[in-house]
Amino acid sequence: MAKEKKLVEAITSMEEDFAQWYTDVVKKAELTDYTSVKGCMVIKPYGYAIWENIQHELDRRFKETGVENVYLPMFIPESLLQKEKDHVEGFAPEVAWVTHGGLEPLQERMCVRPTSETLFCDFYAKEIHSHRDLPKVYNQWCSVVRWEKTTRPFLRSREFLWQEGHTAHATAEEAEARTIQMLNVYADFCEQVLAIPVIKGRKTDKEKFAGAEATYTIESLMHDGKALQSGTSHNFGDGFAKAFGIQYTDKDNTLKYVHQTSWGMTTRMIGAIIMVHGDDSGLKLPPRIAPVQVMVIPIQQRKEGVLEKSEELLAVLKEAGIRAKLDDSDKSPGWKFSEQEMRGIPLRVEIGPKDIENNQAVLVRRDTREKVVVSLENLAAKANELLDAIQQDMFDRALAHREAHTYEASDYETFKQTIDEKPGFVKAPWCGCQECEDKIKEDTTATSRCIPLVGGEAVEGATCVCCGKPAKKLVYWGKAY
Amino acid sequence: MAKEKKLVEAITSMEEDFAQWYTDVVKKAELTDYTSVKGCMVIKPYGYAIWENIQHELDRRFKETGVENVYLPMFIPESLLQKEKDHVEGFAPEVAWVTHGGLEPLQERMCVRPTSETLFCDFYAKEIHSHRDLPKVYNQWCSVVRWEKTTRPFLRSREFLWQEGHTAHATAEEAEARTIQMLNVYADFCEQVLAIPVIKGRKTDKEKFAGAEATYTIESLMHDGKALQSGTSHNFGDGFAKAFGIQYTDKDNTLKYVHQTSWGMTTRMIGAIIMVHGDDSGLKLPPRIAPVQVMVIPIQQRKEGVLEKSEELLAVLKEAGIRAKLDDSDKSPGWKFSEQEMRGIPLRVEIGPKDIENNQAVLVRRDTREKVVVSLENLAAKANELLDAIQQDMFDRALAHREAHTYEASDYETFKQTIDEKPGFVKAPWCGCQECEDKIKEDTTATSRCIPLVGGEAVEGATCVCCGKPAKKLVYWGKAY
Repeated sequence: MAKEKKLVEAITSMEEDFAQWYTDVVKKAELTDYTSVKGCMVIKPYGYAIWENIQHELDRRFKETGVENVYLPMFIPESLLQKEKDHVEGFAPEVAWVTHGGLEPLQERMCVRPTSETLFCDFYAKEIHSHRDLPKVYNQWCSVVRWEKTTRPFLRSREFLWQEGHTAHATAEEAEARTIQMLNVYADFCEQVLAIPVIKGRKTDKEKFAGAEATYTIESLMHDGKALQSGTSHNFGDGFAKAFGIQYTDKDNTLKYVHQTSWGMTTRMIGAIIMVHGDDSGLKLPPRIAPVQVMVIPIQQRKEGVLEKSEELLAVLKEAGIRAKLDDSDKSPGWKFSEQEMRGIPLRVEIGPKDIENNQAVLVRRDTREKVVVSLENLAAKANELLDAIQQDMFDRALAHREAHTYEASDYETFKQTIDEKPGFVKAPWCGCQECEDKIKEDTTATSRCIPLVGGEAVEGATCVCCGKPAKKLVYWGKAY
Repeated sequence: MAKEKKLVEAITSMEEDFAQWYTDVVKKAELTDYTSVKGCMVIKPYGYAIWENIQHELDRRFKETGVENVYLPMFIPESLLQKEKDHVEGFAPEVAWVTHGGLEPLQERMCVRPTSETLFCDFYAKEIHSHRDLPKVYNQWCSVVRWEKTTRPFLRSREFLWQEGHTAHATAEEAEARTIQMLNVYADFCEQVLAIPVIKGRKTDKEKFAGAEATYTIESLMHDGKALQSGTSHNFGDGFAKAFGIQYTDKDNTLKYVHQTSWGMTTRMIGAIIMVHGDDSGLKLPPRIAPVQVMVIPIQQRKEGVLEKSEELLAVLKEAGIRAKLDDSDKSPGWKFSEQEMRGIPLRVEIGPKDIENNQAVLVRRDTREKVVVSLENLAAKANELLDAIQQDMFDRALAHREAHTYEASDYETFKQTIDEKPGFVKAPWCGCQECEDKIKEDTTATSRCIPLVGGEAVEGATCVCCGKPAKKLVYWGKAY
């Protein structure tokens, strides 16, 4: 029994040390491992299976909006990176440089892509000539590299996986519409699939992407009250088009610059799932993203008929379209339960000799630990019903948590005290000056997360929470990952 | 009409200049484009859609054999690459080196992975302790970099996409079985999905992978009579395990080294599809890999009812599980036909006012140009039947072509003359010495492609085609991409 408890005991409690709890879950749920390459991780089978489900769900949504997938090189020649001034300033300090190919030094060094705007622009400049060539709505799934100083699995690593969409349009209106469309795809995906409620908003100029005219973001709140930027969608206007000379001949026979967007979501969303939903028993996966939705665990599996019945139930669950597995390893049921809980599998089926005698099984929800006894002929229907309920309840709980941790402040003392004492979002009016953002960050370490798309205009007479001048916007502030 | 013909006219004929024909098809079918990064390509939407289908089909087959996907870093520290002597000698001359991270020089330079044996070994050394941890059957989908001097789209580029499987097993027998199992998966995939017949065989020591004990290969024959190595599966024995210290405690409580394999298939298979099946009108895609299987092309589409009927037929085809599209652009039917042919779409449906009057449509096969008139209620069934026939016929034609271009030689004069005058495989006995392989390569530029798994033992009394000493093996020789 001592050995049996080890898996659970080894986890730090969330309340005691949230950062250590996160690291423990990542390790014990076997999502990632460290490598000999500092700041780069191995994504292990269970972690990668979650990423595959994220890819599948996002890719399907992208394609429904007309997105086509492509693949561009992983290297960017230095001269190409430098073509757009703001962009190179934003990224040059954190890229990895390739200087030698084989045994020869390169004539021009290249960086490993930190993001691919410059490559797509170079491509589009050759591809786009006429209004008939527009729009281009391309995306790629790849890995990118940013030479971060401090790293954490999924949240911040030197190499991470993502998708990056890059589009070119005839008009500014169309580019803006695509930017918002993709923001909505991300928000819908987070809420419907990951059960993570998000605030849709616009970044301030200080926080926007290097080279963008406008950056839109979805912001979510982790269990510890810190914010996580969960997906961004950028409208570049014609800035990149001018730097790269991307022009088309319009119907009226005049030469015009295209308008561009880009948008991305990364493996950090796996970190968000952990930090929004997890508890002291480990991971909690929303059913729609869980690689295994139901684990069948036999009780007294050596008794006659138990394994046979377990396999039969497994087949019934699979037949009903459920991603189910059977744990018939030689561990004890208690050990299997804690493994299933650690891995966040949403539902387990317990089936033993007595259950078989009574033509029933016990369903146990991972999120609430609620037990439901169900007759065997209703197993699949009940499992599907419970999976739906778990999905919805996880979202509702995350939303309630965010609402309970969203505060308001209209004066600076209250603002600072709230940021300091109450982890969460603080909604406060802002004058629009970067000086106030800088001061707030210096005083509290909080940053402006976004100006919400709904309710982002300051109310009549409101004053900036920092300088007291008339406010222009209402901003969500918070400490962030 | 002059403009209409341009698409077709611009293609070099295969007989005239096969290499130029290949380049033309890649460009005109919009599969790839060149980039500002020398030797690296853009894979455009149509090319990438083929790769997605390859991924989907292979990944499904892998998972049926118990493969799990993971992701490992793209960088390999120099000291890690050097751990296995043969391996570093094979790859060090052709890797790209990262020397700076951000503004700082790295303490140790890293290469961008040319292949990931060393990373997987480093990972397995930490992961594997007991016989309970075995086997590990992992795979990753990623891009790799090899600093080639001369490059061609899909066939040889500095960066390419692939999957690389890496497994660890308790015994030598299990490793050998997995090596052969994956070779069979590749062969089955090529023949069943890509309609490309392959020779399964073993590489000679000269041609095997750097660090492998045995390399198995599938070799296919292109239309021009050159061979293409289409997939390889390596058995490493315990060589890497000893270099990296990957040991496990067996059931008998003794410490043993694991036995490892790796196996990979790449985007060069898109090149194989082009070169095995294509013709002077462009690409010819086997239906099972084609992103679009049927193109509906309206005739006189401005006439009343034609577009409506076309859309109706499109819906019927999709309903029957066919990947179908409608070309309702404002180009002429003739132009649309040549575009559909250039892109290798296996089947087209022509539907015009007269067809509608007669309740029929015309189906035209891309592979044979055969026209079949079908009544509208039979459209989907007939289309599915024709797609199956096209798939089978394409395989049969490729097989017949290979058989017609496979020769035998028992003396060196005949051998040299055959290699020189008759593009294709030459089957000839070999003594087993690398000196003869070297001489053959010097004299003819042909290399040993493989010792076939079936019929690879030399017959009694046969002598080496090069030196005349007693032969040990029968070898397929050929000039290769």
